Amino acid sequence: MDLPSSPIRRLAALATAAEERGVHVHHLNIGQPDLAPPPEVEAALASAPQIRLAYAPSRGIASTLDAWVAYYRRYGIEVERDDLLVTAGASEALSLAFLTTCDPGDEVLVPEPYYAPYKGVVAISGVHLVPVPLGPGYAPPAAEAFRDRLTDRTRAILLCSPNNPTGTVYTRDDLLAIGGFARDHGLFLLSDETYREIVFDGPPATSALALPGLEDHVVVIDSLSKRFNMCGARIGSFVSRNQDVMRAALELAELRLSVPAIEQHAAGAALTSAPNYLTQLVDTYRSRVGTVVNGLANIPGVDVRRPDGAFYVVPTLPVDDADRFAAWMLSDFAVGGETVMVTPMSDFYGSPGLGKREVRLACIIHEADLSRVIDILRVGLDGYPGRDA
Amino acid sequence: MDLPSSPIRRLAALATAAEERGVHVHHLNIGQPDLAPPPEVEAALASAPQIRLAYAPSRGIASTLDAWVAYYRRYGIEVERDDLLVTAGASEALSLAFLTTCDPGDEVLVPEPYYAPYKGVVAISGVHLVPVPLGPGYAPPAAEAFRDRLTDRTRAILLCSPNNPTGTVYTRDDLLAIGGFARDHGLFLLSDETYREIVFDGPPATSALALPGLEDHVVVIDSLSKRFNMCGARIGSFVSRNQDVMRAALELAELRLSVPAIEQHAAGAALTSAPNYLTQLVDTYRSRVGTVVNGLANIPGVDVRRPDGAFYVVPTLPVDDADRFAAWMLSDFAVGGETVMVTPMSDFYGSPGLGKREVRLACIIHEADLSRVIDILRVGLDGYPGRDA
Repeated sequence: MDLPSSPIRRLAALATAAEERGVHVHHLNIGQPDLAPPPEVEAALASAPQIRLAYAPSRGIASTLDAWVAYYRRYGIEVERDDLLVTAGASEALSLAFLTTCDPGDEVLVPEPYYAPYKGVVAISGVHLVPVPLGPGYAPPAAEAFRDRLTDRTRAILLCSPNNPTGTVYTRDDLLAIGGFARDHGLFLLSDETYREIVFDGPPATSALALPGLEDHVVVIDSLSKRFNMCGARIGSFVSRNQDVMRAALELAELRLSVPAIEQHAAGAALTSAPNYLTQLVDTYRSRVGTVVNGLANIPGVDVRRPDGAFYVVPTLPVDDADRFAAWMLSDFAVGGETVMVTPMSDFYGSPGLGKREVRLACIIHEADLSRVIDILRVGLDGYPGRDA
Repeated sequence: MDLPSSPIRRLAALATAAEERGVHVHHLNIGQPDLAPPPEVEAALASAPQIRLAYAPSRGIASTLDAWVAYYRRYGIEVERDDLLVTAGASEALSLAFLTTCDPGDEVLVPEPYYAPYKGVVAISGVHLVPVPLGPGYAPPAAEAFRDRLTDRTRAILLCSPNNPTGTVYTRDDLLAIGGFARDHGLFLLSDETYREIVFDGPPATSALALPGLEDHVVVIDSLSKRFNMCGARIGSFVSRNQDVMRAALELAELRLSVPAIEQHAAGAALTSAPNYLTQLVDTYRSRVGTVVNGLANIPGVDVRRPDGAFYVVPTLPVDDADRFAAWMLSDFAVGGETVMVTPMSDFYGSPGLGKREVRLACIIHEADLSRVIDILRVGLDGYPGRDA
């Protein structure tokens, strides 16, 4: 099988080459934060040598399932163990979502721009992503925008809120409108809620699990990676009250036998950790994102808006081609021995030609370094031969 | 998508019900040994709280890749880091093997009986398994047996040596003959070597990686689960010298980002542990398998042969239907409050109607308990209403 090619892989080679030349590359290209997990995780891992390395149940270890149930209850969401499956990160949950709700050749509607790796995951399942444009300022699309792209192969709508890359947060009303449309047309609503708590003004984002009357339609894809800074633990969850979906997901999960026992143990500790960890996390990202947005807003020709959540900033740059600019920053540019690796946005669109002047910056380093990044980008944009404004 | 249904799931519910009635069920149905991992693993896990829970490289952590390279070198197999990918167990390696070598609709030849979950993994990839009969006494098939089933959709041959479930060990000559056939017909040779060291008479099984002239054809699926008793760590490897295959596998691996960091650390310790661990492991299974084979041979009507490797015994029982017998042992039988859960073999065949009187016993409990299991089976076979010999 062939996966869609990605400009991101080409850039990784250029970054390695720059580092081999001795250039310090600020990696703002990947959502791998520099923060530590909750202290409860380190404490739980002290018992790692005593954990029996036996197959865990395919659905997940009972205490980890219970920790997920307790975590959702904090947000007023009542789910049972049977509505849950512990997964190897959001990646596996996504893959299960496509495999359990779609057949090869089916279509899934997804607002664009969207998280680029969705493309590869659907390719494995033989499913097609059909992009639906976001509104101005990356606002959630109205239900009509989905209607325009409905065919007899449409099986699901895939949302991500707070959104990677745009930071869009879908309100309860947005979700009710889109969810109602999904129900009316017999579609599943696949909801990637990896960044749930990271909302800058107001409470955590509404979960699709909180929508009344959509119990048979909603599948939530979740992950501990970002909210608890444990990307490398690869623990997520797959949640649905639709028992046909859950049965099919469990059968697929049985093929991989289990998710690693030690990380499930650590996940239980994270999920039941003190809530002030998340409050501090949001404060950190609010401040970092503010620094980046304000810094970019002061660079002539750059157009930027403050995201509502997650930890990415997506400016439009005064360049001919963001792919080329990102490559040039790594291959032909450095200031004071430093440069910045950004992610061009073209790969986050399904419609060809869009996002040509946009880049994504992940605010996953210290604020002082982020200020330095802004300075480097300013000098880079000044010197870039393809400048276009 | 629909997965093939399995009688094994139905039996699991019966076992749970028996346990709820207070019956002690000896679980010989799953390859989850009772042995401890090498002591080096426990020592390595003491540093778990200090391991940064960041995304590991998608190919694997450098030290874990190097530990795999050093492990293969023990067997005279020279591979480079670029020939390897650390996987989430053999399950992920298998799935990558099908996705990188086949398109949906393609066919893979596999000697039957074979490891039942292969069916579900290929179903996800849209690939068809075409069974090829083993010879008498579960002997490796001759190359001609593969030729008879070759079509223009055949892409690969899938072997497992030492074999789960039959214990068949393919000699170097067997592999050269089948490998030569694969090369002549432009097929991949997918080799599941999970049980490599567990061979009762002689050295570890020959790896397909050791075959000359097959560098572009061989893909090895490997796992630490059985040889180091760390099923719950979910660490395996995917190995090929075919760089097109490795590139495709890495692209797929990038979609799941990484394999958990802590388990990779533990895997490095296991792979570089003292070799006498494996010697003792083989001694243990040789002795256990001997106990079970000798015990079964003394039950009238039971036909059993000693396997050459792995840790399963597959007797033919004097019953009308092994599925029914296995269910009856759980639902309607107990002696001294005990019973045995065995795996009926029908699910390990692709050809309908085969294996009706065979069961698989995993020798994964203490020898005293295995002797008790034999006694229980003897009484069970005596009382079973569908006895047929």
